[in-house]
Amino acid sequence: MQLEAIYHRPKGHFAYAYDEKTLHIQLRVKKNDVEKVRILYGDPYHWNKDGWIFSYKEMKYSGNDGLFDYWFVEVSPEFRRMRYGFELTNENETIVYTEKGFYPEAPYDDVAYYFCFPFLHRGDIFRAPEWVKNTVWYQIFPERFANGNPAINPKDTLPWGSAEPLSNNFFGGDFEGIIQNINYLVDLGITGIYFTPIFKAYSNHKYDTIDYMEIDPQFGDKATFKRLVDVCHQHGIKVMLDAVFNHSGFYFAPFQDVLKHQEKSRYKDWFHLREFPVKTSPVPNYDTFAFTEQMPKLNTENEEVKKYLLDVAKYWIEEFDIDGWRLDVANEVDHAFWREFRKTVKTVKPDAYILGEIWHDSMPWLQGDQFDAVMNYPFTQGALDFFARGKINAEQFKNVISTVLYSYPKNVNEVAFNLLGSHDTPRILTIADGNKDRIKLLFLFQLSFIGTPCIYYGDEIGITGGQDPGCRKCMVWEDAKQDKELLQFVKKLIALRKRYPAFQNDAEFQFAEANKIHNYLTYYKQSSDETILFAINNSSENVKFPLSININDETVVDLWNDEVVELDKEVELPPFGFAIWKIK
Amino acid sequence: MQLEAIYHRPKGHFAYAYDEKTLHIQLRVKKNDVEKVRILYGDPYHWNKDGWIFSYKEMKYSGNDGLFDYWFVEVSPEFRRMRYGFELTNENETIVYTEKGFYPEAPYDDVAYYFCFPFLHRGDIFRAPEWVKNTVWYQIFPERFANGNPAINPKDTLPWGSAEPLSNNFFGGDFEGIIQNINYLVDLGITGIYFTPIFKAYSNHKYDTIDYMEIDPQFGDKATFKRLVDVCHQHGIKVMLDAVFNHSGFYFAPFQDVLKHQEKSRYKDWFHLREFPVKTSPVPNYDTFAFTEQMPKLNTENEEVKKYLLDVAKYWIEEFDIDGWRLDVANEVDHAFWREFRKTVKTVKPDAYILGEIWHDSMPWLQGDQFDAVMNYPFTQGALDFFARGKINAEQFKNVISTVLYSYPKNVNEVAFNLLGSHDTPRILTIADGNKDRIKLLFLFQLSFIGTPCIYYGDEIGITGGQDPGCRKCMVWEDAKQDKELLQFVKKLIALRKRYPAFQNDAEFQFAEANKIHNYLTYYKQSSDETILFAINNSSENVKFPLSININDETVVDLWNDEVVELDKEVELPPFGFAIWKIK
Repeated sequence: MQLEAIYHRPKGHFAYAYDEKTLHIQLRVKKNDVEKVRILYGDPYHWNKDGWIFSYKEMKYSGNDGLFDYWFVEVSPEFRRMRYGFELTNENETIVYTEKGFYPEAPYDDVAYYFCFPFLHRGDIFRAPEWVKNTVWYQIFPERFANGNPAINPKDTLPWGSAEPLSNNFFGGDFEGIIQNINYLVDLGITGIYFTPIFKAYSNHKYDTIDYMEIDPQFGDKATFKRLVDVCHQHGIKVMLDAVFNHSGFYFAPFQDVLKHQEKSRYKDWFHLREFPVKTSPVPNYDTFAFTEQMPKLNTENEEVKKYLLDVAKYWIEEFDIDGWRLDVANEVDHAFWREFRKTVKTVKPDAYILGEIWHDSMPWLQGDQFDAVMNYPFTQGALDFFARGKINAEQFKNVISTVLYSYPKNVNEVAFNLLGSHDTPRILTIADGNKDRIKLLFLFQLSFIGTPCIYYGDEIGITGGQDPGCRKCMVWEDAKQDKELLQFVKKLIALRKRYPAFQNDAEFQFAEANKIHNYLTYYKQSSDETILFAINNSSENVKFPLSININDETVVDLWNDEVVELDKEVELPPFGFAIWKIK
Repeated sequence: MQLEAIYHRPKGHFAYAYDEKTLHIQLRVKKNDVEKVRILYGDPYHWNKDGWIFSYKEMKYSGNDGLFDYWFVEVSPEFRRMRYGFELTNENETIVYTEKGFYPEAPYDDVAYYFCFPFLHRGDIFRAPEWVKNTVWYQIFPERFANGNPAINPKDTLPWGSAEPLSNNFFGGDFEGIIQNINYLVDLGITGIYFTPIFKAYSNHKYDTIDYMEIDPQFGDKATFKRLVDVCHQHGIKVMLDAVFNHSGFYFAPFQDVLKHQEKSRYKDWFHLREFPVKTSPVPNYDTFAFTEQMPKLNTENEEVKKYLLDVAKYWIEEFDIDGWRLDVANEVDHAFWREFRKTVKTVKPDAYILGEIWHDSMPWLQGDQFDAVMNYPFTQGALDFFARGKINAEQFKNVISTVLYSYPKNVNEVAFNLLGSHDTPRILTIADGNKDRIKLLFLFQLSFIGTPCIYYGDEIGITGGQDPGCRKCMVWEDAKQDKELLQFVKKLIALRKRYPAFQNDAEFQFAEANKIHNYLTYYKQSSDETILFAINNSSENVKFPLSININDETVVDLWNDEVVELDKEVELPPFGFAIWKIK
């Protein structure tokens, strides 16, 4: 057995509380190296004259990421505490893996050998709000969704959709526009909106906040925003705002005060100033977001800054009843701040959702004390590379997605924010070179995967655009210019997701096949009552392949065409074809 | 290259801030599989027209644990943020390891491939109090150290040392006794005392607290305790108390209230009661420490309990100026409680030390937000198995100790609480079957290792005793009965540790040789200015072995015998002999 490949370290994604009674235990081993794994576990204090008393339970193979196999088991220790090890067997040997290393047999003269989950505390469980699991998100860039009140258009507003989006042009999108189009969103089936920033700022994207307590007048006033939130809530739609707390805008009053009064400014500790006088060129001599002198980094370790930002977080929840905060550049803000942020937010609204913008591996932020989820860009990357770009094959795709899945606890994966694109990335149809078939498969995978999907406004009607600002075109409202077929396709997927528990998050996800030559893919979603099998042909060729499942006497329903079918042992899918079979 | 063995995951012990400017990066690979490792790193936002801009830096081989080699590097990124990967080379190939997997060459079209240390925030640095690094601890079990005031003896107190220690007998040790013997401690050279519990309780060990706000009258009153703390401080000795917050004693007033008023008790949420009526037999129907009905588990998620315990934590610091808290059964209390505990304690005394009792792998508690250190029982186990029990050979010992070292950040290792025994374990001399030579080597290793050593009262004068209560004998004060030679030995080691920076924590520790046949061992301690080489023969045979170091023209000082020596290429050590050479 390849001992160096075997890995487990308690807490994180390897050993965690799924709920108040259940521990999830995961073990990583070399791919195809182990045939059977049993966990051996017992109460740390349960002894008799012969030694420590423990039981065995079979672990389940849950999948591989190309390099490693992952084994999984649920355990509910009676007294909520557990010592445990693993018994691994292959054709050559059986070994026992513990915190202290490998043994030929399970030692029972001491519990100190074993891994420890000391106590399952309610408060330490990673818990996102219940509603998030079933949410279908929609991201709106307010300047570009709809102009409902031309009276508040900013200076030099261009006619809607009359020009390419630039970093500095305006089309007058506003809250009134969103309210007027609420039925479109309801009809699409989305149940949550993530708004990019709405606070006072000069730019069209508003990531350069001037005042976190004021709405930018180009979007409307506070009364209109309150009405927007109410309208959303009346239609079963949650509202999430964007908190840009890593940095302020250049014209944020405290930073202007610093520029004016320099070392005498009472705000000098609000930022990370390296020297005086503070200057912006040739390069800024203060910390910034990236190297953007317009975005001075906030000192979130300063007590006044903390209080100010936490007051902001509370204010928009208490006064406007928003349901969540998306945290911009969340990884570059200190953990201590986010811990206080979580406490503050959950105190005023226990079921508010906290979503961090992190593009990389994010376990340190997802331990229950900071975020409920992160923007799942590793998922995005894998999905785009396979479906939209055709840059990786089905097996590589399976490996990328598996790596994401096996890097986090199940309760984290269930609320991951699975986006295909955003205001920061090119439009999916553009990435796919206009190939709509590929986009459909992309939506199919996103909307059947574990996590909460987010649709970037307009992707559902085929809007195109390159890297920002190109991806920030005006929403298309003229019927003739919307891709109605794509829209219907997405609507149908959302409806299926809502109708079948196995389609969404109360289900296990498992890859079945991932063919690297012909790029077809099958995977299961399995809830307590039903199992759905998805088959996707991500290639421009017809594919035929054997189905290695045992259907028995179950009636198989083709969910896409809503008809009972007989499944053949061999399946055929047309180019970019797919099938969704409810097999139980 | 064995890809499955290669591991790195940012934060934890793999990537962490050592100080405000320095990141430590560690990589794990299969033992002897890689010849050279370079980190490649750059600012995430530093690009030119060709792509991402990065640099290379050589990593240093730092050791192995039998299965894996560990490579290490320090990096100080100018803007305190970094993306990075690893370039690994052996005779067959060069590969690049990133968060997204392995590549033949370093990709530079995107930073998303790479591991990320997003920002080095001051407040997120793991930081134990500065003074701890140089502390030599001494653990006192107050009932058994010295009886200085017979007037407050508990009922049925036995004459000092007149009987074997039992779970229920008393010898009248008290604060006055400690004060009277302060010169003994000063002379020994210790600089911190860890007291097992002193609060009101019926037992002799006081782990069954009745009142956390009162001192047990058998030890003295609050004025005497204050005097004890003052005396310690006057002599440069820090004072750490034992906080038993996982559970209370049976006679803790709130638990008695529960027993009396049952579901009507206003304290019913202070504990984990499974049903009413609460009863203790045949088995308790409430959660307890282990299965001890006398120790009901406290509900540290309850707001009132939290407030009560945090008030306790503050009270003894504010009123008595204690310097630290040792947390009993710390792993079974929720993380959220400990986070608040840390905040509370550090607010009233920023340089207070927080030490958790955890016997197993403890990374989840050592991320900067909870404890400063844990009781390093994995170290204890390895040291006892090798030196005292002769149960493992030198190579196995090196592997056990290396596993501990490479499981934690350097700043964590520097303040680890390295004990050889405690009130919970048999006496070291008893474990070693009375072989004092072995005990000396044990002390030598402990007092020259990274971390802060703790001596269990009386081990330094050769007190014996089995598993508790056997290990809780009265301290021996009669000159003739103390092992003076052992005492002098320990004193000399403590003095050397204090005198030479390389002896203590401002130094790198590195094993050089660990011979599994002859059980000799060499290791280096290296500070910025000096290098000490330790050689230990943990066998009953004479050993001769080649010294594979290059001394050049440096003068070598034998620190134990305080003389300049010429080091031969071959070294000879008598049975259980050792040498301490300052080679630079």
